[in-house]
Amino acid sequence: MAFITDDFLLSTTAARRLYHTFAKDEPIIDYHNHLPPKDIAEDRQFKNIHEIWLEGDHYKWRAMRCNGIPERLITGNATARDKFLAWAATVPQTLRNPLYHWTHIELKRYFGIDTLLNEKTGPEIWEQTEAALAKPEMSVRNILRTQKVRALCTTDDPTDDLSWHQKCAADGFEIGVYPTFRPDKAFAISDSNTWNAWCDKLGAVTNMDINSFDKLLTALEKRHDFFHSVGCRLSDHGLTHAFANFDSSKSTQRIFDRYRGSNVRKIYQEDIETLATHVMMHVGRLNAKKGWTMQLHLGAVRNNNTRLAREIGADVGCDSIGDYSQAENLSRFLDALDNENALPKTVLYNVNPADNYVFGTMAGNFADGTTPGKVQFGSGWWFVDQKEGMEWQINALSNLGLLSRFIGMLTDSRSFMSFPRHEYFRRTLCNLLGNDVEAGLLPNDDVLVGGMVRNICYSNAKSYLDLVKS
Amino acid sequence: MAFITDDFLLSTTAARRLYHTFAKDEPIIDYHNHLPPKDIAEDRQFKNIHEIWLEGDHYKWRAMRCNGIPERLITGNATARDKFLAWAATVPQTLRNPLYHWTHIELKRYFGIDTLLNEKTGPEIWEQTEAALAKPEMSVRNILRTQKVRALCTTDDPTDDLSWHQKCAADGFEIGVYPTFRPDKAFAISDSNTWNAWCDKLGAVTNMDINSFDKLLTALEKRHDFFHSVGCRLSDHGLTHAFANFDSSKSTQRIFDRYRGSNVRKIYQEDIETLATHVMMHVGRLNAKKGWTMQLHLGAVRNNNTRLAREIGADVGCDSIGDYSQAENLSRFLDALDNENALPKTVLYNVNPADNYVFGTMAGNFADGTTPGKVQFGSGWWFVDQKEGMEWQINALSNLGLLSRFIGMLTDSRSFMSFPRHEYFRRTLCNLLGNDVEAGLLPNDDVLVGGMVRNICYSNAKSYLDLVKS
Amino acid sequence: MAFITDDFLLSTTAARRLYHTFAKDEPIIDYHNHLPPKDIAEDRQFKNIHEIWLEGDHYKWRAMRCNGIPERLITGNATARDKFLAWAATVPQTLRNPLYHWTHIELKRYFGIDTLLNEKTGPEIWEQTEAALAKPEMSVRNILRTQKVRALCTTDDPTDDLSWHQKCAADGFEIGVYPTFRPDKAFAISDSNTWNAWCDKLGAVTNMDINSFDKLLTALEKRHDFFHSVGCRLSDHGLTHAFANFDSSKSTQRIFDRYRGSNVRKIYQEDIETLATHVMMHVGRLNAKKGWTMQLHLGAVRNNNTRLAREIGADVGCDSIGDYSQAENLSRFLDALDNENALPKTVLYNVNPADNYVFGTMAGNFADGTTPGKVQFGSGWWFVDQKEGMEWQINALSNLGLLSRFIGMLTDSRSFMSFPRHEYFRRTLCNLLGNDVEAGLLPNDDVLVGGMVRNICYSNAKSYLDLVKS
Repeated sequence: MAFITDDFLLSTTAARRLYHTFAKDEPIIDYHNHLPPKDIAEDRQFKNIHEIWLEGDHYKWRAMRCNGIPERLITGNATARDKFLAWAATVPQTLRNPLYHWTHIELKRYFGIDTLLNEKTGPEIWEQTEAALAKPEMSVRNILRTQKVRALCTTDDPTDDLSWHQKCAADGFEIGVYPTFRPDKAFAISDSNTWNAWCDKLGAVTNMDINSFDKLLTALEKRHDFFHSVGCRLSDHGLTHAFANFDSSKSTQRIFDRYRGSNVRKIYQEDIETLATHVMMHVGRLNAKKGWTMQLHLGAVRNNNTRLAREIGADVGCDSIGDYSQAENLSRFLDALDNENALPKTVLYNVNPADNYVFGTMAGNFADGTTPGKVQFGSGWWFVDQKEGMEWQINALSNLGLLSRFIGMLTDSRSFMSFPRHEYFRRTLCNLLGNDVEAGLLPNDDVLVGGMVRNICYSNAKSYLDLVKS
Repeated sequence: MAFITDDFLLSTTAARRLYHTFAKDEPIIDYHNHLPPKDIAEDRQFKNIHEIWLEGDHYKWRAMRCNGIPERLITGNATARDKFLAWAATVPQTLRNPLYHWTHIELKRYFGIDTLLNEKTGPEIWEQTEAALAKPEMSVRNILRTQKVRALCTTDDPTDDLSWHQKCAADGFEIGVYPTFRPDKAFAISDSNTWNAWCDKLGAVTNMDINSFDKLLTALEKRHDFFHSVGCRLSDHGLTHAFANFDSSKSTQRIFDRYRGSNVRKIYQEDIETLATHVMMHVGRLNAKKGWTMQLHLGAVRNNNTRLAREIGADVGCDSIGDYSQAENLSRFLDALDNENALPKTVLYNVNPADNYVFGTMAGNFADGTTPGKVQFGSGWWFVDQKEGMEWQINALSNLGLLSRFIGMLTDSRSFMSFPRHEYFRRTLCNLLGNDVEAGLLPNDDVLVGGMVRNICYSNAKSYLDLVKS
Repeated sequence: MAFITDDFLLSTTAARRLYHTFAKDEPIIDYHNHLPPKDIAEDRQFKNIHEIWLEGDHYKWRAMRCNGIPERLITGNATARDKFLAWAATVPQTLRNPLYHWTHIELKRYFGIDTLLNEKTGPEIWEQTEAALAKPEMSVRNILRTQKVRALCTTDDPTDDLSWHQKCAADGFEIGVYPTFRPDKAFAISDSNTWNAWCDKLGAVTNMDINSFDKLLTALEKRHDFFHSVGCRLSDHGLTHAFANFDSSKSTQRIFDRYRGSNVRKIYQEDIETLATHVMMHVGRLNAKKGWTMQLHLGAVRNNNTRLAREIGADVGCDSIGDYSQAENLSRFLDALDNENALPKTVLYNVNPADNYVFGTMAGNFADGTTPGKVQFGSGWWFVDQKEGMEWQINALSNLGLLSRFIGMLTDSRSFMSFPRHEYFRRTLCNLLGNDVEAGLLPNDDVLVGGMVRNICYSNAKSYLDLVKS
């Protein structure tokens, strides 16, 4: 029997009914991912399953290393086929890891494959997928169409020229391909060389000399305007924790002067926090003014492995979950914006599930009776983006806020094969709700519960983010 | 079919048997709440459901804000009926939030209403409840009788004259209405004006001039004696974390002098911690001497929203869960009391469920072979006072201590409609135990397991707190 | 009906099949415990159940104190029989605590007793067990044989002469009895008298004068070599948190000089951290060179109760779970070793389940494509070593790493009656996996899933730890 059945993850009759009636056919708004817009603009056709599946996926790399696979077969100079076969041999060792489910749901939905991937079946699946990927229906744009994507948001540096996004729009591509404004580098003075080079680049794209903190802010606003003109409606921020060092603007200028240029002597953590606070307040205000949504991704410890960073670079699968104090700073940052009526719609993502209740309650402090669900406790992120993690996030949000106002799932992915994550989320959601119905914890009323399902899958994101022209 | 059935929350035969045989009919000792004693003394009759249900309930306010309801319809100048209807329209959006369950269990138990509350049914339910509330059986005292309350403890400032509690006793009201000694303001020097005014008031009610730290302690002891004479047997403390700055009493006098009066320049966190430590040690010793129970409510971050605090005041539904370090300070504080044989019976309440295991194990360190369950890991509190949170607390307590010695539930509520929370807790408890019995994790022995249920519902609290004269 | 049935803890058909087919008969490698090697060397015969069960078990002592039992009947001068009867009376009060399950599974497996232990059945069980313990099949070595132990590792100070381990080997005892190298005292300068005495003792057993930090390291290496020669293949470290103060070796010599000798004035936390970092790095390097495994037990707060510590000593059941920040230091420590190619195989044990996801992800950062599962997220430890805690650990490991590479269970116990903990773990594991199979979350393939079960029960530990000669 096939592993991925029609009722995969759905353990009760009510769960199945909810999924098949209200969730399955809803379109997708993938409002946060790391897809390369170039591939969409050029409607890339992948040569083999390694290209579409393994080339950029550090989740798989990490699992392979844990399985004792040498780096040559992961990110090294082995052939694409050998790397895929090393992955195939790793798959049976990932039992109970989300990779095991994702692997087989993706093989099923993209290639109709029901065979379990392993060392033995690897070669046959390599050939089968190679043939399938050569067909026009597997071009990037056709994949997006098949997956019912209505809009997607990539993640982009403020200095990016957004030419690929513009090309998609100019082409008349019917699916919205939008950038996201991610200005993390604007206050990354801990690596002052990179920061200075980035400021120079920002100066170049704005025709400005970034020689003061005010000019930095002005240049960021220019880019914010430009991103808006290309359809951007969200900012995104990857931070260990929220910043709340509210010093005077005088001191920000002093800090700016200390790090701008080539004579930086010592880095002070407090300087980073102060500069970051002021940049983040600035972006928050810009977001509020333009009706954007601000996404805060908090709590990751990145690039823990110095040796691998040196040998193969950053973001290669050596990141983990931090245990920073989150509550007080986050409260003070959101409050500072709210207090000047400049708190934008905000999504709080939390990578440490032990903080779910902290985040779930924080969101409720800044509801202001305007936008329903104005401050969102966002979808399970990164290591928490799996069945257990999603269930915890959905349960925390349910118990502490309004699940009914949740804007739901996103892939956060670098691969065009990841859209079934929306299916995975929807099945998990419907399973929880259906089980509740059968246990008498929710009224047995499909209009009520099914309506909520539909809203979480699509309609809430549609009206909250305002990305899709209906 | 009705939503709130006889077997609501009870998923197995054993669970149902345990609840209906051992839990349902037990009386209630509501040993911690925020009910207004005046309403009991005057045997208040409520005019409409807004008065008894929405007037003081910031849980509902918060949910309404999250749902996009404007403040006018929440705490503003809209009519009581319009506010209720705005709440009615919010209820369907609270699916999976405890408010959804509480709403319907309270409508059922107080008014026999089985209709689901929503925008459409709101007007009819307004009228139905208005008629019912006019009847004598719905006066405050009759509600307490119907709910089988044997004793209840309100939360009171040491300067309170306790006249309403005295009136209840003088009336011969058969249900114990006791105060709780909550001296948080005695060390709240972070707001020095309020603290000074409070010290003045304390001086007034004790006929003392509070001009030294020793006099502050003496005055507190006088009030502790007075509270005792009115039947008080518990103190309560709402703190971010336990205090453990054990400086000499010399330094407490210096700190007292620095903040007492109108010339306070700067507030030092360390001063707060030192003063608080010494006041808390003093109250701990007084509690131990008189056989009282000390309740520590730890970990909340209160009044996060400055704008709403300015516009409508404190405690309006903008509080959240903190992520303070708890273990070391709590250990040192309890140890300091224990070390001088002055540790009273103590209940540790924890608002952050991520700390359940920290609290669950801390309680076990200070058992001394006298009172069974001497240091209690208290019932799920605030945001954790719901099915998931209660289950976590019960499971943590079970795994780390002695569930059999648990003194159980309290409402912590400001509304006379909240007593079904005890039912909610009991159903949740019996559901866990019944499921364990059917899974073979507990012996299938009703004397053994049912006896424990009965103890947790009533008898443990009765013997531990010593509030009810049998 | 018996409480401990053949299918105890196994709630589905698949769970039962997996346990009975793949788990039940696997041998045991108990790679971390606190058993006294003397008892094995002398093949001790216990006089009564108090000796084998209660004499050293501070879990039971703690539960008895919580139950209001006076110290005289716990660690005091009451008779062994009276202490046992006090424990018997406590057992029914431990319902839902792991002690309730352990008690009855141990009575069943060692003595065939199906009766529930309580005040009434205590006397009869005392006699029954006394008779049984007198038989030769209940000698320590025969217990180890009956329990299918293939190898076990005790916990030993570097200054230990390991004579009992040597005697076991010299005897030709067929079960491996190995020491574990636990050098916590080498940097315990917070109690400088004890530390100095320990350094003197280390000097004595190595024929060295420990008058410099380098000599301390050299002496530790000598003992590491000696432990290796007696079959030791693991080090163990009980720390509040990992240490990562990487100061120069110059400063370690300065710190050494400050604390070595009798004129220590003040203890600085930073000194402890620096000294500990360098000792730990040293041991890490030695471990890597010899192919040992390094175990880090992180996060406990020990000996919280000063009064009991004074009256009856350390480690008497007054320990609890801490809430230290773990991620950054742990990352920096492991990275420092990895960066010089000196990271040994490592097992991270975490006592605070709120940190499971931090630890589960940390392990994955330092996989290097050599040993499968090189950095392990270790088995549920201490307060987490129970059904709920094990399930959390197994689920976290599954979701964040490779469960298939897990080296599994250990008893961590001081009692020869604790080996059924392996059974308890295996049942819990098979229950999770079997339930997943029946829910369609794992393929219904016994070769695949059953193979993983077998590996986790025995084969992974065998090949990872390299303790058993096949």
